Amino acid sequence: MKLVHGGGGRLSRQLIDEVFLPVLGNRYLNTLDDSARLELSGSKLAFTTDSFVVDPIFFPGGDIGRLAVCGTVNDLSVVGAKPLYLSIGLIIEEGFPMEQLKRIVESIKKTADEADVLVVTGDTKVVERGNADGIFINTSGIGILRDKVEISGSNAMIGDRIIVNGPLGNHGMAIVTSRQNLGFKSQIHSDVAPLNHLTEKMLETTDRIHAMRDATRGGVVTVLNEIAQSSNVGIELDEQEIPVSEDVRGACEILGFDPLYMANEGVLVAFVHSDDAESLVKEMKKLKYGKKSKIIGRVVETSQGRVTLRTKIGSRRILDMLSGEQLPRIC
Amino acid sequence: MKLVHGGGGRLSRQLIDEVFLPVLGNRYLNTLDDSARLELSGSKLAFTTDSFVVDPIFFPGGDIGRLAVCGTVNDLSVVGAKPLYLSIGLIIEEGFPMEQLKRIVESIKKTADEADVLVVTGDTKVVERGNADGIFINTSGIGILRDKVEISGSNAMIGDRIIVNGPLGNHGMAIVTSRQNLGFKSQIHSDVAPLNHLTEKMLETTDRIHAMRDATRGGVVTVLNEIAQSSNVGIELDEQEIPVSEDVRGACEILGFDPLYMANEGVLVAFVHSDDAESLVKEMKKLKYGKKSKIIGRVVETSQGRVTLRTKIGSRRILDMLSGEQLPRIC
Repeated sequence: MKLVHGGGGRLSRQLIDEVFLPVLGNRYLNTLDDSARLELSGSKLAFTTDSFVVDPIFFPGGDIGRLAVCGTVNDLSVVGAKPLYLSIGLIIEEGFPMEQLKRIVESIKKTADEADVLVVTGDTKVVERGNADGIFINTSGIGILRDKVEISGSNAMIGDRIIVNGPLGNHGMAIVTSRQNLGFKSQIHSDVAPLNHLTEKMLETTDRIHAMRDATRGGVVTVLNEIAQSSNVGIELDEQEIPVSEDVRGACEILGFDPLYMANEGVLVAFVHSDDAESLVKEMKKLKYGKKSKIIGRVVETSQGRVTLRTKIGSRRILDMLSGEQLPRIC
Repeated sequence: MKLVHGGGGRLSRQLIDEVFLPVLGNRYLNTLDDSARLELSGSKLAFTTDSFVVDPIFFPGGDIGRLAVCGTVNDLSVVGAKPLYLSIGLIIEEGFPMEQLKRIVESIKKTADEADVLVVTGDTKVVERGNADGIFINTSGIGILRDKVEISGSNAMIGDRIIVNGPLGNHGMAIVTSRQNLGFKSQIHSDVAPLNHLTEKMLETTDRIHAMRDATRGGVVTVLNEIAQSSNVGIELDEQEIPVSEDVRGACEILGFDPLYMANEGVLVAFVHSDDAESLVKEMKKLKYGKKSKIIGRVVETSQGRVTLRTKIGSRRILDMLSGEQLPRIC
């Protein structure tokens, strides 16, 4: 195994396609959406899991506890579910400071309260010094699926507008700059946030959201490539519409990163019918985590399975999936 | 954090009582049963999580994949739920052999098929060499709760008989002997097994099972102490009725372990109304993982919150919860 197998890009996908799906595949797992959609004695629910190994565990704008709650809440939210219940599984290295554990537990609670979800079950394992790195957290989650919601990475339709709820790359750049102690004047904060109240508002506003993802590992481009392939459509982005903060843009230029490929932990990408896009953005802007929502592109008939960027100077550039990994342990 | 905080004994409980519950506590989490019992738009379901860090990952009778499926299947089964869906979260160390990953995935599939459950969602993270030990697996699971089943660690009743489905200590001793390469003549095999078909049979046989647990970390005595305390009753075991295989007994004597405190991964402890106990054991014996079922004790009015052993020579001994840990990373 290589680090890049966990990076969310091409090799992660290859691992899924060649090792996991041929053995474990079934109609739920095969969708590769952010959550499985299940039936349970008449109720429709969503179920998801994520492990968090972020380094450092405390970073500007958040910590591994907030990240673990938001990651799972968001995976449920973007399939159109209302998140209700979380599990927390801790793997802790011997010698990990109890004070830090308490801070993380407080952060889990605070974030769960913000998202209006409950931690209902948990587990703690401790391994010998040197056999883990501080603390790893798994959060799994259950949500209830709204009736008549059919959001999937394979449902994007020609003509759909593509919306993001805020600027790209903040989480990734917060981790990079806090790791490397680069002495930037202004500290970049992670965007880590629970998006369920935002998606709830979005689903109340329109029933024509066809696809939705949160743009974590591999950034917006990775998510868009997955959707372009699953839905067998082309995607065109307008560079001048893509929101990136000045801080992140500057840091990316200095360090040689591309914000389109950087991880976000509070950014979703939604595909919505063109007639509903403007009004949806207007509604999204009313909410805390939607204030900077923008339409950044559209679904087209040409270049099926591909993501193309129309640059500010009018040229076109194909945005391919990552082959290497920008950053290990970003989440 | 100390290794013993993850051992399932007194310090694990202290961690829960002092760090987790005061912050995260709610009516679901507070029960401290093996799974949370939840409501979701009219359906009753059970939800549980467990991380597995067993060392070694391949051991006589099983591997971390089989263990991860069984652990979660069993946690759902012993609250009276029918396990349906699992999530798998992998944390893998850079450099981990792909061949071993494939073996583990095959084992997950085989065990899930045996238990008749589906893996519906998953996640893989990779950390740098030296920051994990090979592979850690989290499995969370959802099951559907049967109507009218009220099984809980706090429901044990005076007069109940206590049943186990097979000999104690096999998993723990399989790990110890495979770790230490002690050169015992006959290899001890782990009992790791999915118990859901057995519990299903048990629940069909009687509706008077009051409490049930699987006896993992800390062994049967730890589980019985938890139930004695939660139900505020006394528990009396008959030493001569407690099933322990000759191999395990011998290894325990040589190595100084007590099979009553050793981890099992295919042993459940059930508290059932005395009138139903004999017939229940008879039914349990018809199933693969119930062939060696035995009544090992009873619930009494005296010594509330305590577990007492009536020894073969007629004396009595209090079986207290573990203060230290026998073995780290047993599961």
